[in-house]
Amino acid sequence: MFFHIKELQYDAAPERPDPVYAKKLQEILGGHYGEMTVAMQYLFQGLNSRADKKYRDLLLDTATEELAHVEMLVTMIARLLDDAPVDVQEEAAKDPLVEAALGGRNPQHVIVSGLGALPADSAGNFWSGSYVGASGNLLADFRDNLTKESHGRLQAVRLYELSDDSGVKDMLSFLIARDTMHQNQWIAAISEIEQRECDLVVPATFPRSLEKQEVSYDFYNFSRGEESKKGRWANGPSMDGKGLFNYVASPPAYGPKPFLFPAPLPVHDTIPMVHPKPSKI
Amino acid sequence: MFFHIKELQYDAAPERPDPVYAKKLQEILGGHYGEMTVAMQYLFQGLNSRADKKYRDLLLDTATEELAHVEMLVTMIARLLDDAPVDVQEEAAKDPLVEAALGGRNPQHVIVSGLGALPADSAGNFWSGSYVGASGNLLADFRDNLTKESHGRLQAVRLYELSDDSGVKDMLSFLIARDTMHQNQWIAAISEIEQRECDLVVPATFPRSLEKQEVSYDFYNFSRGEESKKGRWANGPSMDGKGLFNYVASPPAYGPKPFLFPAPLPVHDTIPMVHPKPSKI
Amino acid sequence: MFFHIKELQYDAAPERPDPVYAKKLQEILGGHYGEMTVAMQYLFQGLNSRADKKYRDLLLDTATEELAHVEMLVTMIARLLDDAPVDVQEEAAKDPLVEAALGGRNPQHVIVSGLGALPADSAGNFWSGSYVGASGNLLADFRDNLTKESHGRLQAVRLYELSDDSGVKDMLSFLIARDTMHQNQWIAAISEIEQRECDLVVPATFPRSLEKQEVSYDFYNFSRGEESKKGRWANGPSMDGKGLFNYVASPPAYGPKPFLFPAPLPVHDTIPMVHPKPSKI
Amino acid sequence: MFFHIKELQYDAAPERPDPVYAKKLQEILGGHYGEMTVAMQYLFQGLNSRADKKYRDLLLDTATEELAHVEMLVTMIARLLDDAPVDVQEEAAKDPLVEAALGGRNPQHVIVSGLGALPADSAGNFWSGSYVGASGNLLADFRDNLTKESHGRLQAVRLYELSDDSGVKDMLSFLIARDTMHQNQWIAAISEIEQRECDLVVPATFPRSLEKQEVSYDFYNFSRGEESKKGRWANGPSMDGKGLFNYVASPPAYGPKPFLFPAPLPVHDTIPMVHPKPSKI
Amino acid sequence: MFFHIKELQYDAAPERPDPVYAKKLQEILGGHYGEMTVAMQYLFQGLNSRADKKYRDLLLDTATEELAHVEMLVTMIARLLDDAPVDVQEEAAKDPLVEAALGGRNPQHVIVSGLGALPADSAGNFWSGSYVGASGNLLADFRDNLTKESHGRLQAVRLYELSDDSGVKDMLSFLIARDTMHQNQWIAAISEIEQRECDLVVPATFPRSLEKQEVSYDFYNFSRGEESKKGRWANGPSMDGKGLFNYVASPPAYGPKPFLFPAPLPVHDTIPMVHPKPSKI
Amino acid sequence: MFFHIKELQYDAAPERPDPVYAKKLQEILGGHYGEMTVAMQYLFQGLNSRADKKYRDLLLDTATEELAHVEMLVTMIARLLDDAPVDVQEEAAKDPLVEAALGGRNPQHVIVSGLGALPADSAGNFWSGSYVGASGNLLADFRDNLTKESHGRLQAVRLYELSDDSGVKDMLSFLIARDTMHQNQWIAAISEIEQRECDLVVPATFPRSLEKQEVSYDFYNFSRGEESKKGRWANGPSMDGKGLFNYVASPPAYGPKPFLFPAPLPVHDTIPMVHPKPSKI
Repeated sequence: MFFHIKELQYDAAPERPDPVYAKKLQEILGGHYGEMTVAMQYLFQGLNSRADKKYRDLLLDTATEELAHVEMLVTMIARLLDDAPVDVQEEAAKDPLVEAALGGRNPQHVIVSGLGALPADSAGNFWSGSYVGASGNLLADFRDNLTKESHGRLQAVRLYELSDDSGVKDMLSFLIARDTMHQNQWIAAISEIEQRECDLVVPATFPRSLEKQEVSYDFYNFSRGEESKKGRWANGPSMDGKGLFNYVASPPAYGPKPFLFPAPLPVHDTIPMVHPKPSKI
Repeated sequence: MFFHIKELQYDAAPERPDPVYAKKLQEILGGHYGEMTVAMQYLFQGLNSRADKKYRDLLLDTATEELAHVEMLVTMIARLLDDAPVDVQEEAAKDPLVEAALGGRNPQHVIVSGLGALPADSAGNFWSGSYVGASGNLLADFRDNLTKESHGRLQAVRLYELSDDSGVKDMLSFLIARDTMHQNQWIAAISEIEQRECDLVVPATFPRSLEKQEVSYDFYNFSRGEESKKGRWANGPSMDGKGLFNYVASPPAYGPKPFLFPAPLPVHDTIPMVHPKPSKI
Repeated sequence: MFFHIKELQYDAAPERPDPVYAKKLQEILGGHYGEMTVAMQYLFQGLNSRADKKYRDLLLDTATEELAHVEMLVTMIARLLDDAPVDVQEEAAKDPLVEAALGGRNPQHVIVSGLGALPADSAGNFWSGSYVGASGNLLADFRDNLTKESHGRLQAVRLYELSDDSGVKDMLSFLIARDTMHQNQWIAAISEIEQRECDLVVPATFPRSLEKQEVSYDFYNFSRGEESKKGRWANGPSMDGKGLFNYVASPPAYGPKPFLFPAPLPVHDTIPMVHPKPSKI
Repeated sequence: MFFHIKELQYDAAPERPDPVYAKKLQEILGGHYGEMTVAMQYLFQGLNSRADKKYRDLLLDTATEELAHVEMLVTMIARLLDDAPVDVQEEAAKDPLVEAALGGRNPQHVIVSGLGALPADSAGNFWSGSYVGASGNLLADFRDNLTKESHGRLQAVRLYELSDDSGVKDMLSFLIARDTMHQNQWIAAISEIEQRECDLVVPATFPRSLEKQEVSYDFYNFSRGEESKKGRWANGPSMDGKGLFNYVASPPAYGPKPFLFPAPLPVHDTIPMVHPKPSKI
Repeated sequence: MFFHIKELQYDAAPERPDPVYAKKLQEILGGHYGEMTVAMQYLFQGLNSRADKKYRDLLLDTATEELAHVEMLVTMIARLLDDAPVDVQEEAAKDPLVEAALGGRNPQHVIVSGLGALPADSAGNFWSGSYVGASGNLLADFRDNLTKESHGRLQAVRLYELSDDSGVKDMLSFLIARDTMHQNQWIAAISEIEQRECDLVVPATFPRSLEKQEVSYDFYNFSRGEESKKGRWANGPSMDGKGLFNYVASPPAYGPKPFLFPAPLPVHDTIPMVHPKPSKI
Repeated sequence: MFFHIKELQYDAAPERPDPVYAKKLQEILGGHYGEMTVAMQYLFQGLNSRADKKYRDLLLDTATEELAHVEMLVTMIARLLDDAPVDVQEEAAKDPLVEAALGGRNPQHVIVSGLGALPADSAGNFWSGSYVGASGNLLADFRDNLTKESHGRLQAVRLYELSDDSGVKDMLSFLIARDTMHQNQWIAAISEIEQRECDLVVPATFPRSLEKQEVSYDFYNFSRGEESKKGRWANGPSMDGKGLFNYVASPPAYGPKPFLFPAPLPVHDTIPMVHPKPSKI
């Protein structure tokens, strides 16, 4: 159950309206790596959690904070849309340069939402539930969370560079700091799980003996040139401490040429002229 | 430029057809964390790369391998669809139990693809370019890659448990082993970048002085109960070594109650009865 | 800002697992008219609101309750997935009838979410931000809310009929009752706005003189047969009290045949053999 | 079966081309609340209808009219795209201000459709079948129709304010008038059904005794502050006449803290360190 | 403008309900190549048409017929859903085999549409405007139409094979016959345009001198093995009569290795350790 | 299995950056008819192929070439994004005209991809697996391929007209030439299959006796006016040589008015007042 407190977690007041920037800012509200995604991702991970209570609480505490970030961004976007020319009679809209500049706004900010934020990204694509990663395996999920916070802070920083509005920058400096915490937090949680499971590989509970172990540490060079040979991934013990990285300059094909039997007639696929003998039999 | 070798990287031959399992296997071909995603993600990351050549090569070598995994999965799914009842006249299809079991297949495997694999997931959703994470910042991108390989191996393992076909299990044991390598590989690459940038936080190039540093290591307890206090994320030095985790039992609201000005008339939003004085001024 | 209380608003405990029903129940969690939609719709309407404070509070109070419904449904779905056969070795899964019945579950409930709820509907489509209606005009928005609660209660009732699990039915009886309240609530709010604006037509602030008033109350019979003549919409004063419904048995075409000029050459559209004289000039 | 009459229902001729406005006008053609939506929504409702013939006819008459509105909008958009610079050699396109202004057009209007309208909204999102509401319950469906006409007229009005082209405004004045009728029409049909079913709550056919009636008229205040107490929804008899609105200042949690059992091993979820006793047993 | 005739173009009455088949039949209603697609594709092509009147009329006549096919399919699907178990109390639904078989239906046929057809395909994906091909170039568009009718008839035939209901087969035999006509019709129209434009290549209006003509008829063998050498595409005069097919066993790379400059700092991409000299300069 | 060669198939170097054109160029990378579509379409067709080896090889050779086109377009787009203003402090960005012009770029090119190409079209819609046509019937599939190459070349030509950058035009002249080949190639392959199957109608393997042959060559005039009578489709022998085109000026309704039975009560559809006798019984 949730409870709403009317105050914002942090102020969300621009110096001046800027409908073109409002469109850009949508990215960290309703984009793949935006606040709607992390709010919903942590919510689904937490509510679905079948693991220790402390992880459930960690996830739901953070989900709840992300809802407050959604609130801040909606508020900021709504204010960036204040006073935007919405009427062709207005003086501003008659200036060809203003009119040209307004080409950079999302027309739905006027026509659809009436000067409100949208559940969409900076290109206008609607937010999708497919962005949510929630698998029940916490190491996979915490890595997903770290990824989303990494892209999230990167995008907030890029938006910071694109603005010279002190109010916008102030709010972003708060969100960027929180992303610093959240990256640290998920790294800490990842580290705790990796130690507990004595493995770096997800899922740790699958017996290694069941995988084709002879290829578990091979790096395959699938291109001309060997620049990829120079990295840590091609040399020395594997990161999980269970093997040695092995650079394979010319990776073999372990399998045969595939052959598919003709389809039965009622499927009406094209039937081959000659039924070749399958090479694998 | 690419070149195609007709042999499969590893064999993809089931013991027997199983159209219901074919539907499930679509997840690691065309799902959020499937082989189409990693192939396209590494391809876009690699081709867009403005960083060191060795990373570009690493990405494109791996992208090229993932295309071979797409090939193996398409082949396996096509073979799992062999001999499936596609005609209501067939004896098999007249058995009510067989008919009931066929309810579990994806009807598009007959009607749309004519016994071929689809660019879709196990629930039938088509693959989307929105699954691709490629930001130009390699630490964000490598974390994204590790995440996708973590979910990917987890899903392959779950599919391994759901099958008793030795051919399917053999192919999955190869893909699972490659996912072991790819998790190790991205951990190695992440580690290399983190050391080089002397930071764990993405992007490392944004001056910390510009973020609201007083909240950069606070953990906010946004719920009743303090189970979340027990983790590494709430105690001791932060993972990036630049602060101390600080557990805040009752997080404050730093901002005021938001107030939005009424919309101009030509927007035709609802106008408030009374224009309240904005609280923030 | 939000705060999380760990107790559920209402209990969400089925008598027994039922993975096939879990798939169906997804509809009112992640479908077009599900709890994710109403939570996000009321949240965006409330946070974007430029009207009276009491409406903003009404919207955010209800949004906050809907988050609790999301929580209940996720919990119920996760429990319906308990003990589901996830391993082909299990006795249950070897029974062909059980296996057939499992064809009715969403394979992503095992492969993707690891026995957790998904942000998706009962056919497996991911939730989309396009489901959210939030226009800034409260009469339009409250009607949208009433619509969503009407479909929502209807779907919950259909799911009630499809279950004989007393735990599921108990939880649904609570959600159905809340939908009774929410339909009543939005009808009350609609009524208040309609009275205040002295009009039933959205938006009330657009001068009627600017619309083509001679067709504002015509009912056009665009088909053979006149069954549609018998309703209230074709007889008597219009509902807004500003006109008379007028049944037009043979609706005229007010416009000419359209003619489009050939495209300029650089567009490379097909060019007509003869440039016909436009009929409208 | 349908029949096409070549004349337009109303003229659709702008004074002058305007490709930027063409992009905006797409909203009421291919957006969530556009003419494609209402045409398809009424078509599916009508063709699926299992209720009285007069409602079926009402729905199909209106669906058929909406197809004529699709036709008008496609025509208008195509004409707004006439003469748009499509060649970098043109004088107009060499003017930096013209070029800047063209940033506001949808590039697909040239590259994809060759100066034709698209089945998409003003942000470029393609129309989706998920916009269609058609449930078989006419009260739910008519409310959905009223909602779509309310948003539809609101958007048409906003587009009217954004234009100073007399031809565009003339066509919009016709569409706005028809939306006046259609709002009136659905209000009339809603009223008829509500009277016939002696209830305002959808579906009326579900016995109230089966819902948790003690919460059917409670308003829950899920936030600090009680502005929401002032409305009709919190005071007096409920709108359906079957209860009394009851404002609950501090809504209780009726349910316990949820607990989920650990997942079986083959799912490879994270296993908790300690199996806590479930609190609910 | 359109007009609706209440009679069906052809009868759409199954012998008996079959909710599992209803799900399959959705493919040719709301799938990529279904009747909604061709109706909307021909409608947009026709209404956007800037070419000869006879093509416009051809397109709109056919679009109008396809609307009648939508009507037939909706009716058939609704009838296939008659009497389906929708209540867990029903005897039928208590039979485990019936229950298992019902796993093959689309749950939205009960929960969402109340026994009505959906604007979706056989896997439950909603219809999308992105399926529509309408470019303004009639040769491209007529080829698109032929493609859609080819897939459409193929799918209808597959569905015919999957049914033993004489009513379903009767309706499909009509739709299949119409697809025979429509394939013939578009082939005729394609042939007419090709002759008129004296070219087979779209667009015919682009001067061949501007394309890199030395590669205009090369077939590139991008794989080991030369099975592809045996076809008409690798031998003799090109189909457009303007060149000779040329089989290139080892296709060259005409371009250099690409090099991308590092991103400017405010983008916060990863910066390479060493700025390599670009190879292309 | 695939192998990567680092050289580009053809050079992809613009004269100068142009972020607005970069957005437009996305269409032929990630749009419905872009290079991602043809690469994936030919890959799925080829890998799923159950027909002659030469067709499989043809498909996979071409798929492999299209991957090289993806590579060229990503490279070109990345270079068009070089030096774009990404910082509000830059001189260029302070020029209102530059700022206005930048409204025409896709903000995700900075915020999301960090100056890299996106798997999306020119309006920002992400690429979708639903674009792929692969049916197992080669005549349907080759027609689909010809269609995609026809739209593809048309779009490349339109983009050629929209550019005056010699580097862009040079690369496009190569892609346009390859599309000339690919159109020729698929026409050749279509011709080969049509001759072999002695039919033009897909699928050729369905007995004509099973379709409703009396309507197989009728052209139905579903509109007022008979412009559509003038074409090849309405006169003379049908293209498949098996019938005569027949123009039907007033197409009949072969079916009755449809009637749907009321839904059973547990569906809670609206119940008609009177149960009319179905007209068809």
